[in-house]
Amino acid sequence: MMRQALTELEFSTSGQGLTEITDDIVAWLEGTGIETGLLTVHCRHTSASIMITENASAAVWRDMEEWLSRMAPEGGHYRHDAEGPDDMPAHLKSALTGVSMSLPVANGRMTLGTWQGIFLAEHRRAPHHRKIVLHVIGE
Amino acid sequence: MMRQALTELEFSTSGQGLTEITDDIVAWLEGTGIETGLLTVHCRHTSASIMITENASAAVWRDMEEWLSRMAPEGGHYRHDAEGPDDMPAHLKSALTGVSMSLPVANGRMTLGTWQGIFLAEHRRAPHHRKIVLHVIGE
Amino acid sequence: MMRQALTELEFSTSGQGLTEITDDIVAWLEGTGIETGLLTVHCRHTSASIMITENASAAVWRDMEEWLSRMAPEGGHYRHDAEGPDDMPAHLKSALTGVSMSLPVANGRMTLGTWQGIFLAEHRRAPHHRKIVLHVIGE
Repeated sequence: MMRQALTELEFSTSGQGLTEITDDIVAWLEGTGIETGLLTVHCRHTSASIMITENASAAVWRDMEEWLSRMAPEGGHYRHDAEGPDDMPAHLKSALTGVSMSLPVANGRMTLGTWQGIFLAEHRRAPHHRKIVLHVIGE
Repeated sequence: MMRQALTELEFSTSGQGLTEITDDIVAWLEGTGIETGLLTVHCRHTSASIMITENASAAVWRDMEEWLSRMAPEGGHYRHDAEGPDDMPAHLKSALTGVSMSLPVANGRMTLGTWQGIFLAEHRRAPHHRKIVLHVIGE
Repeated sequence: MMRQALTELEFSTSGQGLTEITDDIVAWLEGTGIETGLLTVHCRHTSASIMITENASAAVWRDMEEWLSRMAPEGGHYRHDAEGPDDMPAHLKSALTGVSMSLPVANGRMTLGTWQGIFLAEHRRAPHHRKIVLHVIGE
């Protein structure tokens, strides 16, 4: 019978950079017992985001972070600068990479490819606590 | 019992810029009576898009708009220019920010964070009518 | 009664560029017989992606491809370069455009706008086989 499960996880970040959260999502999904369905990951912030990238190379994560900073540099003469020079760039990076994604579930697992990992991307310089909502619907 | 609701809203834009549509979505969602589920917002255009960003500062929205224009500038020697110099940049901005997003629903509300708002981003210079499909599945 | 369907399609790409896959998705969706629901497209790779753009102009697709290469150029002094100069740019383009999207289904069809097409974007120079998961839930 079709059913749903919903939770909120909190992650502590140590400032700008990517943190893989695939295993946390997998563990929660397994606990729901849903075999076939659709899983959604939603980051409840405007200066952090959710993204999928290569899961095997720390060099990729560093390159990704540096590239995002080239795309949305500090010192860009932003109107919105009262919360620090890294705040508006963080909003831009969050919009660029997105705060929500949905993935199919088959045989009790997300259909991630071999090299795909799900990452929480922190875009502020300071450490933050970030809330991530997980939702699954299926059976 | 699991069920669905679906509608199409139309918004008039006044040219390039962000329009917050969170309240319109919230009002429709409340009318469906669905308490737990997944809500999807789909913009049916290739020169407008849907995005989440900070909901409290008009300066953020202006910075976002100007940044998008730096990322996808007019005058970029595009092949596709028959519909005006702002048309291909609008397609690029639409691809960058995306035309569809899904968010969990808990206690009859989207799980948006305190500072998150949902925006219709118009990327053409001229005012347009934009069609947004809303879908929710849940119970 | 609410139900689901799930499949995996494989596409052969001929190197960098966009391939429209709308018709393949439409054909599969029709076969499921689901009239109202939510369809998800998930690309299982980190150097290819899924995007929606204008479906009527090859010039748009070429402009899109060239713009992505300006956003994430080869020769960007990346740490991750062991798999070739086009590999890290491919990861960046994949993150920029995204690997998953969900669209409402109404009257047995995705709610795509007149000019919207769904594209598999190949970001590596060499031809690849790319796996795309399709999932639909509805009734």
